[in-house]
Formats: sequence, structure tokens, C-alpha cells
Amino acid sequence: MLSLSLREEIARRYGTPAVVIDLDRVARNIARLQAACDAAGLANRPHIKTHKNPVLARMQIEAGASGVTCQKIGEAEVMARAGIDDILVSYNLIGPHAVGRLGRLLRESPARITVAADNPVTVAGLPEAAQAGGRTLDVVVECDTGRKRAGVETPGEAVALARDIASRPGLAFAGLLLYPPAGDAAGAQRFLDAAKAGLAEHGLTARIVSTGGTPNLPELGGVRGATEHRAGTVIFNDRMMMAAGVATLDECALAVLSRVVSRAGPERGILDAGAKTLTSDSGGGLDGYGLMPDHPGARISAFAEEHGFLDLAACAARPPVGTLVEVVPNHVCVVVNMVDELVAVRDGVIVGTLAVEARGMIA
Amino acid sequence: MLSLSLREEIARRYGTPAVVIDLDRVARNIARLQAACDAAGLANRPHIKTHKNPVLARMQIEAGASGVTCQKIGEAEVMARAGIDDILVSYNLIGPHAVGRLGRLLRESPARITVAADNPVTVAGLPEAAQAGGRTLDVVVECDTGRKRAGVETPGEAVALARDIASRPGLAFAGLLLYPPAGDAAGAQRFLDAAKAGLAEHGLTARIVSTGGTPNLPELGGVRGATEHRAGTVIFNDRMMMAAGVATLDECALAVLSRVVSRAGPERGILDAGAKTLTSDSGGGLDGYGLMPDHPGARISAFAEEHGFLDLAACAARPPVGTLVEVVPNHVCVVVNMVDELVAVRDGVIVGTLAVEARGMIA
Repeated sequence: MLSLSLREEIARRYGTPAVVIDLDRVARNIARLQAACDAAGLANRPHIKTHKNPVLARMQIEAGASGVTCQKIGEAEVMARAGIDDILVSYNLIGPHAVGRLGRLLRESPARITVAADNPVTVAGLPEAAQAGGRTLDVVVECDTGRKRAGVETPGEAVALARDIASRPGLAFAGLLLYPPAGDAAGAQRFLDAAKAGLAEHGLTARIVSTGGTPNLPELGGVRGATEHRAGTVIFNDRMMMAAGVATLDECALAVLSRVVSRAGPERGILDAGAKTLTSDSGGGLDGYGLMPDHPGARISAFAEEHGFLDLAACAARPPVGTLVEVVPNHVCVVVNMVDELVAVRDGVIVGTLAVEARGMIA
Repeated sequence: MLSLSLREEIARRYGTPAVVIDLDRVARNIARLQAACDAAGLANRPHIKTHKNPVLARMQIEAGASGVTCQKIGEAEVMARAGIDDILVSYNLIGPHAVGRLGRLLRESPARITVAADNPVTVAGLPEAAQAGGRTLDVVVECDTGRKRAGVETPGEAVALARDIASRPGLAFAGLLLYPPAGDAAGAQRFLDAAKAGLAEHGLTARIVSTGGTPNLPELGGVRGATEHRAGTVIFNDRMMMAAGVATLDECALAVLSRVVSRAGPERGILDAGAKTLTSDSGGGLDGYGLMPDHPGARISAFAEEHGFLDLAACAARPPVGTLVEVVPNHVCVVVNMVDELVAVRDGVIVGTLAVEARGMIA
């Protein structure tokens, strides 16, 4: 992705490790996602957990996205401040701190705000936010059709929670949020059909039926009745998406530029990117902690906090100390969250930096 | 560590997840490390990678530490700005960016600065920093006595690199840096004795012989000729140090306060602390991603980015949605690096927050 002279220039200006994005590839990934949603007749609501940056969110909106998805209230605040006007927080917001911030967001931002819930405790807390915000809060019911993550596990529970929402002052039942397991659109369909039938019995309608996930893009449109899709990782892609067969190396728009700082043994090397940069995320059981396209035989076999340990036994051209190498991370979303800024390049030239404004917004 | 009312108060003020330290335990851990170094006749040079905070570094200095250890130049800058006057950067600083920052640090800070090197490329770049700084730069040779991390692998290489350092303008050979494998003080001793003999043949002396690691504290003083020790994790301790037998639960001074936000299935729960808080660090192969002292049967079995998935099958008292739980992380150093501030408590009362000032200082 980066020429040798560009690597030197980035390293000189910003030091290493540096997290670098190629804006041409980013733009192509954004366009590809939008085209896929358009073709499937779905609104595109990208998840900003991957980039955490308002400029990139704006690029997604300008390409046709209907709004954004956030995972935490802090991310939503950053997006609202940047003028994004339709925000879904796909998370159970519980407790006085989160509910208080949600109330302030509803009061101070003109954005359309929707939140998710998968249990009555969450629902019971939300009217306070709506009241503080002075407006009705849209709530979707998170449903689990098999991934065993968040979400009610049966259509009956979904209907019961929708009725609970609809009965609360200041809340409106807005629809259903799904993240089907890849390859099981049929299971999601059965869940959705049963839930919609149950809702109808109680005079309720799911205006929003939101599906999610970059791994589900090949099956986009496979769930009849879906209205929108939430995909995050696709804006940058990573080794995990390559392994899932939904991205090629050329579609990976982010790399960590790292320097070989030691060649302690003939078959060993050490990168200056360790667990505090690339993270220990295995990408769902991949071999090693990143892909080095220039050095296909090299394996990032282990980490110290600031050291990436290279196994070079199978590496034909072993990089000497000082070499600048690109690493495609296992999981791009957690790597972006480690740094305060991304170095942006376009057409082989450094454009500047983008602040990871919602970095560390865990609350 | 935290009473239920204190948990509620922290959650109300700061939201969850929150990274909380107990200053009483911190002070005891600092005192215990200092006493161990004093008893072994070693200077105490704690590694600030664990806390990344100048206030805690000052507490260590006031307790008797001779200076601090940093892993990256950005960490050293933060410590120098805070007035810490003796700083070792135990890392190969390579390339114009790192060398340039080192030169500025030498010029602008009155602190004693020492850096490490394990190869001639690093050494060749350092005179530029010394020249820019207008003073001699002390350099120690990093030696690997068996851990297979950074460091020259033989006493002969150590001597050759020491001679290289001594021959360069502006550089002074200052000594040797070791991080012996736990339980192998004998191996480190053989390496050190051979290296010192080789150095003497060339008229060189290792003024500093620095050993490292919290796991090596039980053997402190086991390497004859050592002059100082670098330990980081011990200030907070964690599940990994408990597993290594060098800390008890009562000596763990940091916990992540997290809320149960979903009980999607009867045997499953979801915490609001996921991979972006607790990190995927396995702590060297521990079972699960943290210890929940209040819920000994609960297991943090997997992560999404903002979700910790609880396996509650073996949990006698399964926490309902909304419960605030403490999690002792697998590896405390990487968790501190995820957040901008630590919530500090003392005697069961919130004292305030400490900024993780060197967070994300990967360059």
C-alpha cells in the first residue's frame, strides 16, 4: 500500500508505529457498501466504532448513508457534535450516568436518536432520558437469532419487550435490531416473521428492521422485511475480513507502519508495534497477530507491550534492523481505538491526520 | 475492594466501565517494592509503563526510587515534564523521529537520561541525539539471557556493542540491561560474569547492571553484581501476577468496575467492558479475560468490542441486569493504556481521577 519513500516520510514526520489509512481505498470501500445497500433496497447506517471519526462519518453520509450506528453514548455525543443528524446507539444504556448523558443529548442535539434494549431493566430507565430530553425516544428491541451476543432469544420475548416500551411514557417502539450469524439469513427470517406476527397481534409495527455486520454483506437483502444495514469494519477491512472471504488485500485501507528495532537472533526480529498497538485480538483464531504483505514468510508470533516478536524462520528475505514494514491488523476496529490519530494518505502523498475523536469512549 | 455504595457512586459520577485504583493498596505495593530493593541492596527504578502517570511516579520516587524506566520516548517526555530527574528508556530508539525527540529531550530537560541498545543500527543513530542535546548520552547494552525478547544473545556480542558505544562521539557505555527468565538467576549470572570479564579486557566497566520484572521479585538479589531493578506491574498487580505467585488478591490495587447490561440467556450475561476495555490479553494463557472476585463461578469467556460475555453456568449467584461488578484484569498494564483516567479511591472514598498522561505513547 505504501511506497518505501512514503514509509520513510511518514516515519520521519509521525514516528512509528503509525496507523495509516489510504483515503482512495476508504472512498472505494464506502462506495462499495453504499452500492450494496442500494442494490438490496436497504438504508445504509454504518457503524462508526471502526473509525470513531466525524470526517469519515461525513464521507459515509455524503455517499448516501442515512445515519450512523454507535455502540456507546460517548461515541454518539462525538457524532452529534459533528452534526450527524441520525444516530442509532445499538446498546443497552443503563444507570444514572448513561441515562443522564442520553437525556442531555436528546435535549441539546437536534439529531434523531434511537437506542436499543434487550431487557426490561434498560427499558425502565429510558423514560427519564426522554423526559430530560423533552421529546419522545425511539427504542428498538435487540434480537439474537443465534450469535449468542446481546439480544432477546425468542420472538415472544421481543414482542413482550416491544409492548413494555410502547407502554412507557416518552418511549416509542421503533423496531427490531438483528445481527444474524453469517450464513443464517433463514434463521433470522423465521425469527423476524414470528416477531412481526406477534407485534401485529398487539397493534405494533416494526418501522425499523436493522441487520448488521460486514461479514453479512454477501447475503445483504437475504432477510425480507429488513429496512437498513449496519456495517462497520468494511470501511477499512482487515485480516479477519479477508479470512471471512469478504475483503481482499487491495480492499484493506489501513495498515500499521512499524519499524524492525531488533534482530536479536538470526530467525527472530522485533517490531516496535506490540500489544499496545496491534492488540492481542486473534481475529477469531488467526495464526499470529497481523499480516505483513511484504514479508509473507514472517509471522508475528507473540507480543510484549511495545514489542511485536517476529518469527522469521520461514521468511526468505529477512528484514534487517531499521526496516519499515506494513502490518495489516487482525482486527482493525480495536487497533484504531489504540491511537489518537490516523495518518491519511491519498495518491501516495500524506494528506494529514484524522483525530480518532471517539477513542476510548467506553462509557 | 469496593463496597456496593462506593460502586454506585463511581458509576454515577464516571459511568461504567471505569478503571479504579485503591491508593492505600498502591502505597503498600510501592512500599513493598522499595523494601525489597533496599533489602537486596539494589536501586529501585520502577517501570512506568504500568501506570503512565506522573503523580504515581512521584509517589515511587518519594518512597525511595532512584528514577524511573520508560519504554518509549513519549513516555520519557511525560515523565521529564513532570520533573522526574533520572529516566531510563529501555528500548532501541531508531530513526529520525525518535532520535530527534531524544535530542530535544536531552537539550530541554535537566534529567539524567539513559537509553538501551541491542544492535549497531541503534547505536549508530544515537550520536546525533547526543550532539543535538549538547551532552553525553549514557547507553546500556540490552542482554537476553534466555527470554527470547530484545537483547544480544551472547556475552561476546554485549562486549562488542559496548565497545561500539564507547567509540562513538557523544556516547558513553553505561552498563548492561537484563530481564532474566523467572527462576534462572544462575543463567543471568553466567552471562553477566562473562560479559564483565570481556568488558574488563577492553578497559570498560558496567556502572549499571539493571535487572527487571515483577515476576523476578522473589529472587531479587539473586544476580551478584546487579545495581538496580526495574519492576512495573507490582504497583497495581493483576491476575497474571497472582497466577505467577507474586501477588495475592488483596495486593491487586486496580479493578475495572463494570455493569451487567444484559442477561440474554439464563446461563449467559453481558458486561459493558469488552475488548476495548479489558483487552484480549490472555495473561499468558489464563482461563477467561479477568477475575470477578464477587462471582467466583463466573467466567468472562469471550469479547465483542464493548461486550464482555459471561458464562454463568457454574455461577451460584448469577448477577441480574444492572449489577455492578469488579473485574481484576488479566494484565493491568494494557488495561490502564485503554483509558484517559483512573478513578482513585482511598479509605472507601473517591479521591478524584489521575490522568493516564502517557496513554497511547507508542512512538
